[in-house]
Amino acid sequence: MTTVELEAGLDELALAHRILAYEGQGDRTSGHVSWRDPAGRGLWLKRARIGMDEVASRADLHLIDFDGNVIAGTGERHHEWPIHAEILRSRPDVMAVGHTHAFYSQIFASTDEPLRPIGKEGVWFDDPPKFQDTCSLIRTPELGRALAATLGSNDAVFLMSHGLAFVGSTIRECTLVGIYLEAAVRAQVTIAMTGFRARWPDPDDAKAKRAQTRTTGGINNYWDYLARKLTPASERTG
Amino acid sequence: MTTVELEAGLDELALAHRILAYEGQGDRTSGHVSWRDPAGRGLWLKRARIGMDEVASRADLHLIDFDGNVIAGTGERHHEWPIHAEILRSRPDVMAVGHTHAFYSQIFASTDEPLRPIGKEGVWFDDPPKFQDTCSLIRTPELGRALAATLGSNDAVFLMSHGLAFVGSTIRECTLVGIYLEAAVRAQVTIAMTGFRARWPDPDDAKAKRAQTRTTGGINNYWDYLARKLTPASERTG
Amino acid sequence: MTTVELEAGLDELALAHRILAYEGQGDRTSGHVSWRDPAGRGLWLKRARIGMDEVASRADLHLIDFDGNVIAGTGERHHEWPIHAEILRSRPDVMAVGHTHAFYSQIFASTDEPLRPIGKEGVWFDDPPKFQDTCSLIRTPELGRALAATLGSNDAVFLMSHGLAFVGSTIRECTLVGIYLEAAVRAQVTIAMTGFRARWPDPDDAKAKRAQTRTTGGINNYWDYLARKLTPASERTG
Amino acid sequence: MTTVELEAGLDELALAHRILAYEGQGDRTSGHVSWRDPAGRGLWLKRARIGMDEVASRADLHLIDFDGNVIAGTGERHHEWPIHAEILRSRPDVMAVGHTHAFYSQIFASTDEPLRPIGKEGVWFDDPPKFQDTCSLIRTPELGRALAATLGSNDAVFLMSHGLAFVGSTIRECTLVGIYLEAAVRAQVTIAMTGFRARWPDPDDAKAKRAQTRTTGGINNYWDYLARKLTPASERTG
Repeated sequence: MTTVELEAGLDELALAHRILAYEGQGDRTSGHVSWRDPAGRGLWLKRARIGMDEVASRADLHLIDFDGNVIAGTGERHHEWPIHAEILRSRPDVMAVGHTHAFYSQIFASTDEPLRPIGKEGVWFDDPPKFQDTCSLIRTPELGRALAATLGSNDAVFLMSHGLAFVGSTIRECTLVGIYLEAAVRAQVTIAMTGFRARWPDPDDAKAKRAQTRTTGGINNYWDYLARKLTPASERTG
Repeated sequence: MTTVELEAGLDELALAHRILAYEGQGDRTSGHVSWRDPAGRGLWLKRARIGMDEVASRADLHLIDFDGNVIAGTGERHHEWPIHAEILRSRPDVMAVGHTHAFYSQIFASTDEPLRPIGKEGVWFDDPPKFQDTCSLIRTPELGRALAATLGSNDAVFLMSHGLAFVGSTIRECTLVGIYLEAAVRAQVTIAMTGFRARWPDPDDAKAKRAQTRTTGGINNYWDYLARKLTPASERTG
Repeated sequence: MTTVELEAGLDELALAHRILAYEGQGDRTSGHVSWRDPAGRGLWLKRARIGMDEVASRADLHLIDFDGNVIAGTGERHHEWPIHAEILRSRPDVMAVGHTHAFYSQIFASTDEPLRPIGKEGVWFDDPPKFQDTCSLIRTPELGRALAATLGSNDAVFLMSHGLAFVGSTIRECTLVGIYLEAAVRAQVTIAMTGFRARWPDPDDAKAKRAQTRTTGGINNYWDYLARKLTPASERTG
Repeated sequence: MTTVELEAGLDELALAHRILAYEGQGDRTSGHVSWRDPAGRGLWLKRARIGMDEVASRADLHLIDFDGNVIAGTGERHHEWPIHAEILRSRPDVMAVGHTHAFYSQIFASTDEPLRPIGKEGVWFDDPPKFQDTCSLIRTPELGRALAATLGSNDAVFLMSHGLAFVGSTIRECTLVGIYLEAAVRAQVTIAMTGFRARWPDPDDAKAKRAQTRTTGGINNYWDYLARKLTPASERTG
């Protein structure tokens, strides 16, 4: 990978933070997204003490190895780096990991309800697991491994009285998974509030819809749209 | 129809997209409204890859025939063009069709509840049908015909785990039908959440109110108001 | 009353519309507030076809007599002028009347629930009556009189599948009554959604709080605050 | 304490008001935060007649003694100064007191529900008491003492049909306690609306998380983030 390609990836990682904040998942200086270093040195992560909306450029990201040592870039490391390190270690298929305190996902984490394919976003998911052993910050490799074990081969995991973590095979997919999951939970939570009997597609139908919409092209369309919302008109080239 | 009249219609179709986005029915690059070509060649539809809020002018619309061929204008065609083509084919009284992923309508589509004339918006509707055979994208003429058959002679149809489609005898009416339907569902959903016993007007009273408010004059007042919100002051002539 | 005093009252009436819109009670071109003409000629009312947020000045108001004739000013008359004329006719203590389609009040109108003194806003009210005979527009003196009869000596009346009407001894009080009522209903509706058993102050305690907060001084503090939000900084004198 | 240190504290107190307003706890001219005068003369409090968002500088604060006499600064005193005076008198560990009408906290005050450690904010609290003897304004030392007695050694107290009061050992902690409490209640209220069975951490786990997040460093990170949102870019130095 060339320097130009690396920098393009880091620009995308910075943008992923701003998109998640734009989508309402910001929580002051909490929340972060990581990207597996393409040279195998570890992972790139937002630095601490700034909000996701404030990740302006590559200078707000740093490279840490899988043991948490900052090996490139500056800034204070997030305490919860083991979420990223241990998920990336256990999931070679995953290139990006996100962690936020999205409202509906956080309260859903405090229930035993299975997630249903309600709404266009719900069909993207099988029922993601819930990590309910502790609400502690995930500050140690041990807790990171426990969380990764609960995640298993799923797209996402809910953390009781804490938030959610979500993954993707690209930064873009990971970001959209986080957005879709929060929307799916909001839909299910809202319908539960009504007391109306809910219906949802049968599993084959839901999976077929997922295959239609969770595509590179579909993800790129949404990503590009969101990127336009966050790029000042004066800087637009396309 | 003169070129000037055609262009005025297309300007209105572009504005309909921006109004629906302003009213909260945008979903990134999803959602689209069509207008029956006055010369009988097919239908005008928003191009893909931009948001409803980004439909700035006639250049963002193209003409497709009822088999989906783009015959005027540029840009990528929406996959779900058969929603529009098949509804327009089966409903000669309909001049415009909208499809969005409005939140409350989408979750209402996952229930068997009839829509009640609750709220000033609720009185506009008889109980619109629900399309629950599949949550699939409507990408084929076959699915478009199935959806049109469920719609029947109604104003709108809810699509399970997908969204809603709505029609009108003009672009303006179609747009307001979409806005009113989402508001009507939100009112019914909210009252259901309280557990309070709900009351609504008897059918004759509801229909009389509908006749008072679903008028060309009433629709134009609201349309003009919304148009003012979306037209920069510097471009206003009236 | 001098011309200067009349104009100051009309400026206040124009501002009342903008405040109600700022507080979320706007509904495109619907909603209007009236003021009893101090010279006894009838009532001043917002003209039709503009939103409450668009009532920029005295030029957007006109004087109509109690039979609905426009006797000063320009612009199209609101169809629902009889709400104002008949309430003002039957209630000599009332100087101003408002009518909006506020969301929570409108759905509350579709229930038989009594309003409770829940929240700081709830203590302002005894249980306002509900007009549920018809959801029709109030376009005739007959319907205006029926509505005024339901209102009786109360501060406000809920209109099923329509909205609410509210009154005050001044424009300022009327405006705050509309704002407080919607807030009171929202609080009661929200607590009902939880299923929690609700408590509220006993009647004497609630009335004592009302006497503490529904004062000229308290109303003026809130009014002045809201006025500052709607007056461009460049036009501020105080 | 030097004049420079005093002024820094007052700047922080002014900012605390703007932060609470930014976080949605503003209610026109209602709501106020106090700081114990470091020289032991009484307490610094926002002046009346302006909104929390309008507390622009030290000039909007004044010093009152524990009997309510304004002894430095200008402006009208808030009627509810005894909330601050009596809590500060009875709680030597408390340096700052806030009082707002935050929506969810206010309705929660009308229930007998205990607060649970649901959500990352919920773990900050034991179950704060509810003051339900009266909904009256707290305008007298007697009522202030009754409220302080209900507060006891807790972080916060809910006031039925009124609002909430909250305390901290610093202005920053007090402000964050107010923000976290409203968020905690919103989470519990929302989950109750669904009817889903809720789970929460056991007491030891919740307290361990509290110890991880309710730290000077954690509070400063959030405070600094919020301060950046409210400081015009042109005035930023850091």
